[in-house]
Amino acid sequence: MQAEMKMDLNDQLRQAVRPTTWVESPRLSKRLDVDVTIASESLQHTGSFKYRAAYNVVSRMEQDRIVTASSGNFGQAIARACAELGKQAIIVMPHTSAQVKVDAVREYGATVDLTDVRVKGRQERVAELLEEYPTAYVGSAYDDPWVIEGNSTLGDEIIERGGFDIVVAPVGGGGLTSGLVLASQRAGSSLEVFGAEPLMANDAARSLRAGEIIKNEVEPMTIADGARTPSLGQHNWAILKDGISGIVEVPEDKIREALRMMFVYANLKVEPTSALGVGAVMVQPELFRDKKVCCVVSGGNVDPDVFCEILSGS
Amino acid sequence: MQAEMKMDLNDQLRQAVRPTTWVESPRLSKRLDVDVTIASESLQHTGSFKYRAAYNVVSRMEQDRIVTASSGNFGQAIARACAELGKQAIIVMPHTSAQVKVDAVREYGATVDLTDVRVKGRQERVAELLEEYPTAYVGSAYDDPWVIEGNSTLGDEIIERGGFDIVVAPVGGGGLTSGLVLASQRAGSSLEVFGAEPLMANDAARSLRAGEIIKNEVEPMTIADGARTPSLGQHNWAILKDGISGIVEVPEDKIREALRMMFVYANLKVEPTSALGVGAVMVQPELFRDKKVCCVVSGGNVDPDVFCEILSGS
Repeated sequence: MQAEMKMDLNDQLRQAVRPTTWVESPRLSKRLDVDVTIASESLQHTGSFKYRAAYNVVSRMEQDRIVTASSGNFGQAIARACAELGKQAIIVMPHTSAQVKVDAVREYGATVDLTDVRVKGRQERVAELLEEYPTAYVGSAYDDPWVIEGNSTLGDEIIERGGFDIVVAPVGGGGLTSGLVLASQRAGSSLEVFGAEPLMANDAARSLRAGEIIKNEVEPMTIADGARTPSLGQHNWAILKDGISGIVEVPEDKIREALRMMFVYANLKVEPTSALGVGAVMVQPELFRDKKVCCVVSGGNVDPDVFCEILSGS
Repeated sequence: MQAEMKMDLNDQLRQAVRPTTWVESPRLSKRLDVDVTIASESLQHTGSFKYRAAYNVVSRMEQDRIVTASSGNFGQAIARACAELGKQAIIVMPHTSAQVKVDAVREYGATVDLTDVRVKGRQERVAELLEEYPTAYVGSAYDDPWVIEGNSTLGDEIIERGGFDIVVAPVGGGGLTSGLVLASQRAGSSLEVFGAEPLMANDAARSLRAGEIIKNEVEPMTIADGARTPSLGQHNWAILKDGISGIVEVPEDKIREALRMMFVYANLKVEPTSALGVGAVMVQPELFRDKKVCCVVSGGNVDPDVFCEILSGS
């Protein structure tokens, strides 16, 4: 009975998310000198893979309200998942958030709680809201088994497509990569999972070397803003410490170059964090040469000004 | 036997092309106040719908060599189709063509014939090449029944998806819209086909009003460079004159605004010509309101500089 219920929820999740968009670009592969196929989540609902996690969390939680701090993709994803599933979302965002991001969360029907982070931390504000709504679920963008399970559906799709030796995906809090490792282990697949992390925010790579979670001491201001997380999550680390095959550290200029290459040779609009996978192939091609590689583009939400600044090569 | 052979070729064509990419964006539909779904050919092989036509032409022609004048998407599409099918392509391009476009055609394995168009017209150069290769096929990007038939496969996909009242697509030489009308008529579908044309290159709209083909007197320098064609083709006109439901004339500022909206709300990189469909919905919303509308994005090949100039709103 429990197995049946689980199956139903997984089926529901697979139907609720948009299948990933496969992009093969011979011109991109030629330039990388590596056989690369892109799995792009830029056209996923709300524009990023986070919708997989968000939908899973909101459908599995018994509560009818979720409170989470997010200035980015997870907030939008939770907002839309709650709208789809008839639940309430309160998204705590810094008062300095770009208006377009605030508007996006509101358009999906969530309540935006703007917090002056000079006065009060975002987690502090989440705690306050919990006093007001003691039965609400507290959402984490990565450190949550349901988040990992939701993201594992992308791994399922990659394994079902078949033929890949390696998948390489961005690492921030580790929600996506741990989901991919979970999918590979669950399927008994030989698919290897590599992480791609900004060199200037390399806490995950350092954690892997140290054998324990290492935190960034200050928020690293990498252009890949989805990877500015303080550290890997506990649940993610439990899966990644033995499950991930390696982490490639990508300098900022390679992140930018990878974004440009995907624009020119694969006709993709990707957010900077999403350029990490192709950036990793550029940085350590010997890891990927003669393999069939899937690069995950985690999302496409990026401000036009930031995008063009990167595209111009300045 | 002939019917069987035709079936085989159609099946081969459908397998050779990449299915169109469907993008539903509630945020875009909300802003347009029209229920719009995008069928994007930006991820088609060679980055535009032209590959459908090119593959069909190259597979159906008995000749093993094709000569065509194209500085854009058709040249790349013919080059790759010839590479796939083991035939030779000579693409006549103006000597002023951007190096990236020349490189793209060469990368797909075609011979590029750079012609100084101040001295010799491109069609004149094609005629010269025909003297050298008298058995070569002369390719037209739109005025060719095989081109129309190839493009009709996009119409087939739109009809197979179902539920649409209207499809709106860019009009240049009329190759795409005539293909869509052909598909709708062949299927006995009630799907209406509208064209979207730059106001400053409105020869097709004027032709429809006049009841005969009207040519642009000079090359109209619209940002939608795929619609800078001198006039509709004869084969296209034969289908469009009674088959198209109407043509919406889109001012340049709306083309630009539509491109920006698709970037922000649908995470798409589209070329300016491809913004015409959404632009048409903005210009004459009353035509589309309360209908289920498919907007065709014809391709995604655009220089970063041009793209960012449009994105910046300047």
